[in-house]
Amino acid sequence: MYDHIRFSRPDQGLVLLDQRLLPGREEYVCCRSTDDIIVALKDMIVRGAPAIGVTAAYGCWLASRESDPDSSDWRDQLKKSLDRISQARPTAVNLQWAVERMRRDLDNHPDLTLMALRTRWLDLARDMHRQDIEINRAIGRNGAGLFTDGDRVMTHCNAGALATAGYGTALGVIRAAVEEGKHISVISNETRPFLQGARLTAYELNKDAIPVTIACDNACGLLMSRGLVDKVVTGADRIAANGDTANKIGTYMVAAMAKRHDIPFYIAAPLSTIDLATPNGQAIAIEERPDREVTHIGETRITPENVPVYNFAFDITPAELISGIITEHGVLRPPYRESIYNVMKEQEHEPI
Amino acid sequence: MYDHIRFSRPDQGLVLLDQRLLPGREEYVCCRSTDDIIVALKDMIVRGAPAIGVTAAYGCWLASRESDPDSSDWRDQLKKSLDRISQARPTAVNLQWAVERMRRDLDNHPDLTLMALRTRWLDLARDMHRQDIEINRAIGRNGAGLFTDGDRVMTHCNAGALATAGYGTALGVIRAAVEEGKHISVISNETRPFLQGARLTAYELNKDAIPVTIACDNACGLLMSRGLVDKVVTGADRIAANGDTANKIGTYMVAAMAKRHDIPFYIAAPLSTIDLATPNGQAIAIEERPDREVTHIGETRITPENVPVYNFAFDITPAELISGIITEHGVLRPPYRESIYNVMKEQEHEPI
Repeated sequence: MYDHIRFSRPDQGLVLLDQRLLPGREEYVCCRSTDDIIVALKDMIVRGAPAIGVTAAYGCWLASRESDPDSSDWRDQLKKSLDRISQARPTAVNLQWAVERMRRDLDNHPDLTLMALRTRWLDLARDMHRQDIEINRAIGRNGAGLFTDGDRVMTHCNAGALATAGYGTALGVIRAAVEEGKHISVISNETRPFLQGARLTAYELNKDAIPVTIACDNACGLLMSRGLVDKVVTGADRIAANGDTANKIGTYMVAAMAKRHDIPFYIAAPLSTIDLATPNGQAIAIEERPDREVTHIGETRITPENVPVYNFAFDITPAELISGIITEHGVLRPPYRESIYNVMKEQEHEPI
Repeated sequence: MYDHIRFSRPDQGLVLLDQRLLPGREEYVCCRSTDDIIVALKDMIVRGAPAIGVTAAYGCWLASRESDPDSSDWRDQLKKSLDRISQARPTAVNLQWAVERMRRDLDNHPDLTLMALRTRWLDLARDMHRQDIEINRAIGRNGAGLFTDGDRVMTHCNAGALATAGYGTALGVIRAAVEEGKHISVISNETRPFLQGARLTAYELNKDAIPVTIACDNACGLLMSRGLVDKVVTGADRIAANGDTANKIGTYMVAAMAKRHDIPFYIAAPLSTIDLATPNGQAIAIEERPDREVTHIGETRITPENVPVYNFAFDITPAELISGIITEHGVLRPPYRESIYNVMKEQEHEPI
């Protein structure tokens, strides 16, 4: 659907649409090394938990190409590179999940040569890439039934095609409802400071001719009080074992306002976003990002010099505010500790 | 304190600091006509309910200078100009309050010549200007006791010196607490789309050496959940008879999150902001402002072409979320219908 994450055989690299420049410019960056991938993740050339996971998988393949096949400790070298990729961003568990998947593959094949591993890991990354799109389509099918004709749906940040390998999680659900013939219109919160809602969600939906209106994040209370919002759906960066969910900063406020106004609030995310090792939201590390995202827009400085800023990239929505978690294996309902445990046990979720 | 609203005798006009350009540039605009004043109000060269009121009073004086003293219907001409000023912005009641004050003065002096009225109205405007600063100082004195040493206080938008004739309402209270020797630090929400918090509140407090940190509006839930906010205080654009309060878009979300986290939420405003003719928040007109404030920052377009936006400038905070309303005649407490009625009756509030 989107060509924003693409393996290039001629370049032997991963070509990424530079999401920092959207919607103004569509430019591509080719990552040919581990360092390129880490920069792409840190600088948010690519962002969105599932897209980060897929990018990291390709990053592991690029790392395998940098290890020296003549060296006896190429496995240790490679593991160090994997650690570096894994640490590029702290909150989205999909990053660690993807790297861990590759690390386990390395450990499970102690006799594999580096040359053979390189071929294998490129195939693995491409499988994870394809599979992410299939998972999104399944999330869409499972979630579409929650929406009815005429719904005005608020979303926060971008959990769309651009945040995944394609199709999207939150926007995938909206797309699937539209494909069922329902008329859905979307309110996209602009999502300061990186403006993923104003720039990316609006761009995607506009391309798909799904009606979308942009609002500043702080308008959500007024819009809800005026009856302009029927439902809310967002993505997730990490879901704890009790259902507490880390997602883009502001999600918590939107969920709390939705609760106040009796508006259903849904999370749409693949099971790879669930981290059973994280008992609750308080255990999730919240990334703090560079000041410049807040102090500048483009080249324009909007704050006085020498005034400090907060730039936490995520917040935690308590499970009690979440009406349902839409996954590729159905919609999880409260109590989440139980429904999450059951779905994870049933699936014994293995990615490939 | 600030020279941002200044009568200039040599120019026979009102000199305004162009608040759109702060904090980057300090430039002044001289209003010499009714039209100049209306542009200054509409384009938000000057903003903030009390500052709007004072500017409008000078606008009435400028209007009196445009009426033709040789015409028999100069009073009707003048009233039409007053109507135009009064309609420049719909939400802040201080605008209507100030113009109404001048209109009553006109009606109360049917024998006054236009020449005499011009002199009288310049004096009236200058009195209202001075009086607003005195009122702010009284609000500060009354509110300072609500804050304790070490408090971290969140504010939204700019209810500071720049939003008033000087000193400020919400920031006046903070200034007064600091003048009492308390250490207060401030979290200033950036306040999209016009960024009054990032640009103006941070600028003012930084100049006064009061510690201030800027946060995106959507971070307020996280900051409160982490225990970084002890109290909240904001200004108001209109307070209804039941205590429901119109203020800058986003105030409602902040108040609702404060309630969720048991954090006291105060409004600081002069009695001229109270409108007994407005029974509750639903009766308050909410201004919708030009799309460009949301779609662009400076010259940079941040949204895709052809995607509509919401740009409501205010929202309504229900009285139940407000811990107290700090006025020049003391702190009003719930139930507000009663406390507001009593204070307005006691004062029979006459501005001059």
